[in-house]
Amino acid sequence: MSKQHVNGKVYLVGAGPGDPSLLTLRAAQLLAVADAVVYDRLIHPAVLKHARARARLLFVGKEGGGESVPQEEINSLLISQARLGRSVVRLKGGDPFVFGRGAEEALALEAAGISYEVVPGVSSGLAAPAAAAIPVTHRGVSGSVTFATGHRAGKAPDWAHLAGAETLVLFMAGSRLEEATLALIAAGRAPNTPAAIVEAGTWEHQRVIEAPLAAIASRAREASVGSPALLVVGEVVSLRSQLRSLVESRSVVSERERFLKAEAGHE
Amino acid sequence: MSKQHVNGKVYLVGAGPGDPSLLTLRAAQLLAVADAVVYDRLIHPAVLKHARARARLLFVGKEGGGESVPQEEINSLLISQARLGRSVVRLKGGDPFVFGRGAEEALALEAAGISYEVVPGVSSGLAAPAAAAIPVTHRGVSGSVTFATGHRAGKAPDWAHLAGAETLVLFMAGSRLEEATLALIAAGRAPNTPAAIVEAGTWEHQRVIEAPLAAIASRAREASVGSPALLVVGEVVSLRSQLRSLVESRSVVSERERFLKAEAGHE
Repeated sequence: MSKQHVNGKVYLVGAGPGDPSLLTLRAAQLLAVADAVVYDRLIHPAVLKHARARARLLFVGKEGGGESVPQEEINSLLISQARLGRSVVRLKGGDPFVFGRGAEEALALEAAGISYEVVPGVSSGLAAPAAAAIPVTHRGVSGSVTFATGHRAGKAPDWAHLAGAETLVLFMAGSRLEEATLALIAAGRAPNTPAAIVEAGTWEHQRVIEAPLAAIASRAREASVGSPALLVVGEVVSLRSQLRSLVESRSVVSERERFLKAEAGHE
Repeated sequence: MSKQHVNGKVYLVGAGPGDPSLLTLRAAQLLAVADAVVYDRLIHPAVLKHARARARLLFVGKEGGGESVPQEEINSLLISQARLGRSVVRLKGGDPFVFGRGAEEALALEAAGISYEVVPGVSSGLAAPAAAAIPVTHRGVSGSVTFATGHRAGKAPDWAHLAGAETLVLFMAGSRLEEATLALIAAGRAPNTPAAIVEAGTWEHQRVIEAPLAAIASRAREASVGSPALLVVGEVVSLRSQLRSLVESRSVVSERERFLKAEAGHE
């Protein structure tokens, strides 16, 4: 980097849960002017259409069964793009600070002396249950909600604590669903607690599977639930049956939506 | 209602945490066409500017020290506006299903046979900590976050459970902060756990107070922290000191911002 260059800036931006209309105004404004957009797999194609025509679109997600770009490489990419003087939007599914590794990127940018900003997004942890007609809190039913992930580097989740959550939303539940539900029951959660899996929440091809906690993993397996999926556990799940209009408004998947699903790589 | 009238529709819309640029595209689109907008106190004035010029703006929040409009009356208002054939945006701070009483309104609309839709928003529970340079989750530090409220109708919060949260975000902590911190410590949370109060998170007049859990309530009292405020408890709070750029980017409150603060009723 020569002395006359001025560093650019990196915006760590939440793209929301999938539905492109849940993008924030700020995210859309930043996309419209960014020189580079560094994005993950779980970004709806319509969100990327907000990027200006000449922006560099840099994909760092996992393709099919392949590997993700290592976090270290993503950090380096953000830093090198900024050092070229570019304004960079780092677009992440949901919110950057909810299991989005946004803090790791922020710390790397801080250490490198690059300007950055965090733009919160609509978290899938709230929006996917809502799209499945499940309010995560409800007066008299649940006064708290816990977001957790089943995947933890080097450390098992604290199942005893998670089993006591009024509403539990478990991210990335897909591959470890059986393990998670067994662990919650072993830690004292009633096997008949209402539970639901929301696959691809807010996307056109969203699917919801509802069953008691003890049965949800086998139901999900029968239905071949893929990624992304959230597990929701708690009495709030039973509110679905009282919010039929919300359930029914999402029950038809059209041919156009199947096309979008295929295009987004979820089939 | 005469037979020839067709009911309108109610949109239960999250307005985000305050910063008007964190409104979703969907919320802005709905505001631009709604016949009526029913809104709370914690809606930024600039958000309401998205409403079309001829929309009816109906305020149902608490003014100064006064009373809120009772929930039953809000439900009736939404139903009666929809029965006039109007499209109604019910605008709520944050997300409608996170302590927003959105589920109560949805159930009332369902029972009345009115069409409705839920539009998730950016939750203050994520965005206010982010604006205070606190990532609610971080690899190796916190793999879960619990949102809870200190105010519960008819039932005390389960402090023993909340004390075990890796990251705890307590909503509406203002008036019961002393009680909440004492209860968390009595339930086993270490008195020196890093904690912060975020007052008016993402608003122009945001303030952040950081102290160990045992000292945060007295610090907040000294600083006359008002409403809205969130309490964040957990090791993630200590990441603030490593994310100085985020902290410094918000350290200046201009005269214009003080004016907005006064206008929004926070002073």
